[in-house]
Amino acid sequence: MADAAAEKTGAMDINADAKEPSKSALKKIAKQQKLAEEKAAKASKPKGDSSSASNLKAAQKKPPAQGAAASKEPKAQGAAAGKEPKAQGAAAGKELKAVNVLKEADFAGWYAQVLTKGCFISYTDISGCYVYRPASYAIWEEITRWFDTRIKSIGVKNCYFPMFATKEQLEIEKDHVEGFAAEVAWVTKSGNTPLEKEIAIRPTSETVMYPHYANWIRSHRDLPLRLNQWNSVVRWEFKHPQPFLRTREFLWQEGHTAHLTKAGAEEEVLQILEWYAGVYEQLLAVPVVRGRKTDKEKFAGGEYTTTVEGYIPETGRGIQGGTSHCLGQNFSKMFNIVVEDPANKEGAKLNVWQNSWGLSTRTIGVMVMIHGDNLGLVLPPRVAEIQVVIVPVGITAKTTEEERSMLHKEVDGLEEILKAVGIRVMSDKSEYSPGWKFNEWEQKGVPLRLEFGPGESKGHYVTTSRRDIPGKDGKGQVAITELGTGVEKLLSTIQKDLYDRADQKFKEHTKKITAWADFVPSLNAKNVNLIPHCLTEPCEDKVKDLSARREQDDNTPQDEKAPSMGAKSLCIPFEQPEEGLAEGTKCLNPECDRMAVKWCLFGRSY
Amino acid sequence: MADAAAEKTGAMDINADAKEPSKSALKKIAKQQKLAEEKAAKASKPKGDSSSASNLKAAQKKPPAQGAAASKEPKAQGAAAGKEPKAQGAAAGKELKAVNVLKEADFAGWYAQVLTKGCFISYTDISGCYVYRPASYAIWEEITRWFDTRIKSIGVKNCYFPMFATKEQLEIEKDHVEGFAAEVAWVTKSGNTPLEKEIAIRPTSETVMYPHYANWIRSHRDLPLRLNQWNSVVRWEFKHPQPFLRTREFLWQEGHTAHLTKAGAEEEVLQILEWYAGVYEQLLAVPVVRGRKTDKEKFAGGEYTTTVEGYIPETGRGIQGGTSHCLGQNFSKMFNIVVEDPANKEGAKLNVWQNSWGLSTRTIGVMVMIHGDNLGLVLPPRVAEIQVVIVPVGITAKTTEEERSMLHKEVDGLEEILKAVGIRVMSDKSEYSPGWKFNEWEQKGVPLRLEFGPGESKGHYVTTSRRDIPGKDGKGQVAITELGTGVEKLLSTIQKDLYDRADQKFKEHTKKITAWADFVPSLNAKNVNLIPHCLTEPCEDKVKDLSARREQDDNTPQDEKAPSMGAKSLCIPFEQPEEGLAEGTKCLNPECDRMAVKWCLFGRSY
Repeated sequence: MADAAAEKTGAMDINADAKEPSKSALKKIAKQQKLAEEKAAKASKPKGDSSSASNLKAAQKKPPAQGAAASKEPKAQGAAAGKEPKAQGAAAGKELKAVNVLKEADFAGWYAQVLTKGCFISYTDISGCYVYRPASYAIWEEITRWFDTRIKSIGVKNCYFPMFATKEQLEIEKDHVEGFAAEVAWVTKSGNTPLEKEIAIRPTSETVMYPHYANWIRSHRDLPLRLNQWNSVVRWEFKHPQPFLRTREFLWQEGHTAHLTKAGAEEEVLQILEWYAGVYEQLLAVPVVRGRKTDKEKFAGGEYTTTVEGYIPETGRGIQGGTSHCLGQNFSKMFNIVVEDPANKEGAKLNVWQNSWGLSTRTIGVMVMIHGDNLGLVLPPRVAEIQVVIVPVGITAKTTEEERSMLHKEVDGLEEILKAVGIRVMSDKSEYSPGWKFNEWEQKGVPLRLEFGPGESKGHYVTTSRRDIPGKDGKGQVAITELGTGVEKLLSTIQKDLYDRADQKFKEHTKKITAWADFVPSLNAKNVNLIPHCLTEPCEDKVKDLSARREQDDNTPQDEKAPSMGAKSLCIPFEQPEEGLAEGTKCLNPECDRMAVKWCLFGRSY
Repeated sequence: MADAAAEKTGAMDINADAKEPSKSALKKIAKQQKLAEEKAAKASKPKGDSSSASNLKAAQKKPPAQGAAASKEPKAQGAAAGKEPKAQGAAAGKELKAVNVLKEADFAGWYAQVLTKGCFISYTDISGCYVYRPASYAIWEEITRWFDTRIKSIGVKNCYFPMFATKEQLEIEKDHVEGFAAEVAWVTKSGNTPLEKEIAIRPTSETVMYPHYANWIRSHRDLPLRLNQWNSVVRWEFKHPQPFLRTREFLWQEGHTAHLTKAGAEEEVLQILEWYAGVYEQLLAVPVVRGRKTDKEKFAGGEYTTTVEGYIPETGRGIQGGTSHCLGQNFSKMFNIVVEDPANKEGAKLNVWQNSWGLSTRTIGVMVMIHGDNLGLVLPPRVAEIQVVIVPVGITAKTTEEERSMLHKEVDGLEEILKAVGIRVMSDKSEYSPGWKFNEWEQKGVPLRLEFGPGESKGHYVTTSRRDIPGKDGKGQVAITELGTGVEKLLSTIQKDLYDRADQKFKEHTKKITAWADFVPSLNAKNVNLIPHCLTEPCEDKVKDLSARREQDDNTPQDEKAPSMGAKSLCIPFEQPEEGLAEGTKCLNPECDRMAVKWCLFGRSY
């Protein structure tokens, strides 16, 4: 089979990579350092005071005495200070400010460093709780603006329900409460006084909201009722918190709607899912697969769940991106949300059809994992708070104050031009060296850097440097007469290229598997596997069990969070392989004797 | 004195009102009913089937079998349903949908009804927690948009800190924790498992945020640091919750900034306060007094607090509208937030100057209390989700289907014209009677109603009906050729008139008091009192004690929430009386022998 061949090649490449991590890593370090050298040399040369600087560390040693705001290690102090993650605390010396863990060598350590040094998050004294700093929160604001506009266009209205629920409320829907009970945080006292009744903090708001829906909805004229809230929810119980991906409190939106007909509900489920895909694909340059969850993986208490699933190349794991649930009439029966049947004048009652759908700040973590590199964050222009940074260069010991002031004025002019066409731009005219600034803005992921010095001024152009292609390959020039359009075009190209590269990786690592023997090796080669499957829960459990890594001599580098994780079903993709399933295809699981129903995507996952 | 005379007149009027509530109330009921009759008669006449309708109840008895979505009583049902307030539950029958408690007779009962029937809030099973329904949340969204744009213009950035704090964090600043300790809600278990350490839910975020400020701020170049978050906070301990005004969880923004100099901090404190005043005055049409809190009333742990104070005429109580605090260097010393002194090269350290400032959903409650009337909510056009509702009228039994369809098409045309000029408009073409619709949209507070029937169509005009002036006095016409500008002008006028009326009441009920004997009678006459005061805390305590109502035969109608409340200082107004304080003026408190320092505004308050 053609696919099997392609897969084999891919698998071999990846295995080679996986079995010799040190060689591969060393190669990349060497490449990164070379790039850094080039940059440092170029940046520092005109200044005259560091022309011999030939490596990244030299550039890094030149911060002014008080340093930059963004990337300091915590001070020793009496107050309960945010604790930085161990990976960073252990490895990073005071002088070292750059990311110093390789993405391909220690993914979790790299992720923590990129987030903290890029000023996306700070750790707190409470495990699993993080500060979303302005740079990451601005991305969340962009996502909310985009999505909020769209849901309002179909009549969704925002509202706010309390963060607290009573025990009685929580327990109305049995499956639902079972799905969340262990994670619920309970408030039991105020000040020093025990509460008469313990109060739950919402892990999600179905049971908080639906009693009110029962009150508000009386007639089919009240339908559809479409409400949404932008809020935070709390899910306390888990072992391995990770910023954005798995946190005890997280920001999200939760939409909760009620419809007269199943068709009305289902149309909305898919519309919302398409917008979730849009957040990933259009804003975050992250490819996702749209599909339906198996019954085992669906939302607790719902009828079915649709999902967008992403893929993290370094760990080879799938990640759930956002889910849009058709709840059917299950909750409306439990909460007695009924209307009179418009087609039946005898007063017959209909239970409404409900949906709920949620998208969280996890989006931001996925974006970081996919685009970030060993220099730091890489932000897609569409969501970057700062899309372009202008850095004056070529100021040396011989530069007069007047010349410097002239150059800065020209930089201000460039900034104005770009602002006028709606580009989010800033110039960095601080006293730090260009090399220092380059590192700083690279860590923060600014998509495009413009360098402007006496040479550029004379030649009427700016030097451009793409964040997504570090080093010489990402350099270019734009004439000042075409600055606005030229930069806009570059930003569009960066956005597209980020998506395309990620998409190619996802596609390359999605393997159609038709023999069980290939299943686990493919997972180990950091693939997700599309397999003929029966879609039953016992079989999924078995697949998970069979694919858990148990051999002690397996020297594949282990993702510390999931060293021996078995594969779960990620989704049943809406877009099935063209050839479909040949009649009589069995479920891939060798211990299952059912027939396959669909191609189902399995993978190790977050 | 001129003021004393004016005050006396005012006081007499008010006392007359207060001592004979029944007469006054009856008068107003009669007036309201007359207006309702007119409306009902007019609205129903063309329909032919209720031409004899002569009172509000008749109009109310005509809902279609299934009724409207908005204003139903809770159904009896198994689920934990939101409980409506007692005032409503007791008084309102199934058939009665209009607000049926008079604002001037039972203010708290009226407030609860107006909010629930106007679809602003729903009550929940947890005392002090309310659902903010779309109609009220839309106003909060408008406030956030307005304020968020402004703070971003001075470089404030949004972010999000966790809702949880450790005990150690909370306790770092002693005065601060004392101010909040009794109100703090504690999470002590997840699922069934006790937490190792109890975790607090933030009552405000100073102690959550400032440890991070200590990490992030190293150099004077990092200043000012200006962060803000839109979030909810929890303050559990209090006796009398009231929607929007005093709730256990509330939505707000909290800004927290750090500055190199006191001057920088102080400039911002006042800028923010001015924007808080802008939210009230420009958006909500609510007049406020800008001033400084006395030391007794300032923020726990801060240096001083500035405030905008409003006034609720029916209760004669002041209400704190929003506060902007200069924290001085107090927190920065506790949390060790220091930078090197840029003027001192010897490495001396400076503690930063900090501010914090917050505005909450209380804004919405104040707006409702001030503008609402006995027909329901009255929304200022600037923040109303729906500014204009168009109601087709004059459809009778003789109207042909074609005529009705033509009329509806014309209504669509009017809607388009208004949308094109940016007015938030909807038309109500449902099958309910015009009288029913009038009541519905009046309860919801829509600022302007346009009526359009065969007469209007023939005459090329619309009939306008102002929500703020119910009945004939608020009626007018606008030619269709001038619809856009005419309606815009009317909305502006409504906005201005709402403000002016409230401002006039506030001014009339702000009394300069120069003899202690007048102090309590003036309070009892629902005034707030501007008095010469020494500004010391013991004296304030004494004033409060002396002004608490203790006589059993005082038959002033009692605000159920504060029957015997003494007066607190509301603020030291920035704008002091022109004449200032004559030299040698004593503090007004007869038991105080200090000299007066400023005119200080005292009042019973929320």
